[in-house]
Amino acid sequence: MAEERYDIAIIGSGPAGLQAAINASIRNKRIIIFGTEELSHKVVKAQKVSNYLGVPLVTGIELKNAFQDHIDKIGIQITYERITNVYAMGEYYALMVNEKMYEATSIIMATGIEYTKPLKGELEFLGKGVGYCATCDAPLYREKRVAIIGHNMEAVEDAKYVNELAEKVFFIPMFKEKFTLPADIDIVEDVPVEIIGEEHAKGIRFNNSELFVDGIFIMKDSVMPDQLVPGLELENGHIKVNRNMETNLPGCFAAGDCVGKPYQYIKAAGEGCIASLNAVSYVNNIKEHQ
Amino acid sequence: MAEERYDIAIIGSGPAGLQAAINASIRNKRIIIFGTEELSHKVVKAQKVSNYLGVPLVTGIELKNAFQDHIDKIGIQITYERITNVYAMGEYYALMVNEKMYEATSIIMATGIEYTKPLKGELEFLGKGVGYCATCDAPLYREKRVAIIGHNMEAVEDAKYVNELAEKVFFIPMFKEKFTLPADIDIVEDVPVEIIGEEHAKGIRFNNSELFVDGIFIMKDSVMPDQLVPGLELENGHIKVNRNMETNLPGCFAAGDCVGKPYQYIKAAGEGCIASLNAVSYVNNIKEHQ
Ligand SMILES: Cc1cc2nc3c(=O)[nH]c(=O)nc-3n(C[C@H](O)[C@H](O)[C@H](O)COP(=O)(O)OP(=O)(O)OC[C@H]3O[C@@H](n4cnc5c(N)ncnc54)[C@H](O)[C@@H]3O)c2cc1C
Ligand SMILES: Cc1cc2nc3c(=O)[nH]c(=O)nc-3n(C[C@H](O)[C@H](O)[C@H](O)COP(=O)(O)OP(=O)(O)OC[C@H]3O[C@@H](n4cnc5c(N)ncnc54)[C@H](O)[C@@H]3O)c2cc1C
Repeated sequence: MAEERYDIAIIGSGPAGLQAAINASIRNKRIIIFGTEELSHKVVKAQKVSNYLGVPLVTGIELKNAFQDHIDKIGIQITYERITNVYAMGEYYALMVNEKMYEATSIIMATGIEYTKPLKGELEFLGKGVGYCATCDAPLYREKRVAIIGHNMEAVEDAKYVNELAEKVFFIPMFKEKFTLPADIDIVEDVPVEIIGEEHAKGIRFNNSELFVDGIFIMKDSVMPDQLVPGLELENGHIKVNRNMETNLPGCFAAGDCVGKPYQYIKAAGEGCIASLNAVSYVNNIKEHQ
Repeated sequence: MAEERYDIAIIGSGPAGLQAAINASIRNKRIIIFGTEELSHKVVKAQKVSNYLGVPLVTGIELKNAFQDHIDKIGIQITYERITNVYAMGEYYALMVNEKMYEATSIIMATGIEYTKPLKGELEFLGKGVGYCATCDAPLYREKRVAIIGHNMEAVEDAKYVNELAEKVFFIPMFKEKFTLPADIDIVEDVPVEIIGEEHAKGIRFNNSELFVDGIFIMKDSVMPDQLVPGLELENGHIKVNRNMETNLPGCFAAGDCVGKPYQYIKAAGEGCIASLNAVSYVNNIKEHQ
């Protein structure tokens, strides 16, 4: 059970999420913002940024430091957790971090956009042996053979969990950091080329080999927003919003790369501002009618 | 006659216009930007700005200096002229400064929003106890006495918010609709005649009385944007745009306060970015078909 209900939960700590957090905090809303310590790898990885008005000619790291300094001064703390699922409950949203739940009256999606191309066969077999949420679907693979294609360190945790249920787990790391896993998990040091199968996925093809399994989890940095929030309407691969940054779900707003091009810091921040102030009005309105 | 045709002419040197100029310059477009030496009086007059991500807790002057520094570094020079009329000529726009004419393939309206009929003393004390944005400046009046001159129902919301921080709030309704406010807000049923003060605003004079306060917010309905561009479609007093910041006139884009609320620096800059990149595409497209 959630301990308390937040007014606004913000998913993502890039410029869109941070700006949203600033506006909502200044408006005295109870907020929670989920993200990472580096704020956004799309900020820290930039070599030189020259187009963020007011912060001229900086490195991505310098821009990230300016953002961090700002939220520190306002007193905003990021919750370093990854939201795995969001459910619209009518009066509020339930945000899941695996088994843990947070509640918020309104949410702002500021999750950015993932550029990793799906594997051949991935979308075809999605829901037919291919999944993105190991902690949701692992029970389906009790006593079965499961492969996990992990794009980040969080996948390591998921592999351990799946290993408690499955007969056999194969872990395919797609990242460079060091990790440790229980000895009975097989680590496959190869690059997947295709998900193979017929009606249902039956394995992964590598350049020179194939691995046969019953289920495959692909743990990426971000999933499609409609997988995160069932029922959320998309348009050309982005969350569909109007000029108030409202999505099709009442109380669910979105901003930044996840709502469309151009992919730019200042555009993301500007939209975060709009989304936030509209979420504030939404929350005020709900409170008045209670 | 115009000497040369610009790719993009930007009208206004607030955050929307400056960001547009930066993006278009980086994209190697021939641009001209019209505005004033102080960039925007809505920037320089702000007492304290806490909600522009990356530039935390600055005065309006400091923010203006950060903007100026940025355009200096990119090599953008503002043309200190006021555009009096713009005509859509089909292939290009003619921008008039009285008798003088400039030509541009595309234009970006970043003119902000003008307010009509200021009260006596209003402009004199703007930024010195008089403000237009309760949600921006309310924190300055923590534990102080604040009057709100409200021209619309939104002012009621703002009064509630200010009331959370201020010691005492007086609400002066300038509209007829019914509204409800917390009992501890005093409603003043009288018409303000003048803002009084010396260095700093100290109150409001009515026909037969005076009210002494530390801060005064005047919450007006924006007036119609100036009829600079005949044929430009408006919606609720703002320039009508879609999410690409396109107006109804091909090649004419708009951004910032002139296209709608919320009236915020970062929102204006974010929209300037979108307008600019779409103007760049428009210009590229025209050139390709020549
Ligand atoms: C190398 C590089 C250089 C760039 N250079 C520039 C440039 O010079 N100028 C410019 O304007 N733009 C530049 N960009 C584009 C810019 O990075 C993006 O437009 C911007 O970061 C988008 O901001 P955002 O807030 O929408 O998303 P992001 O910055 O992508 O942030 C998304 C955040 O959401 C988090 N998140 C996602 N899903 C979840 C979840 N389920 N739970 C919790 N958190 C989650 C992520 O961890 C991340 O912190 C560059 C991008 C790259 C990759
Ligand atoms: C006192 C005060 C405090 C504020 N505090 C905050 C705050 O803390 N945080 C926040 O986010 N927002 C704040 N705002 C709101 C913010 O100022 C506006 O939202 C923002 O300035 C809008 O930017 P803009 O670029 O759209 O327009 P503006 O900044 O209004 O700029 C418009 C520009 O266009 C020029 N222009 C207009 N017509 C013409 C023409 N015909 N020819 C040439 N030039 C023209 C003007 O001279 C001006 O330079 C404050 C506003 C005020 C007045």
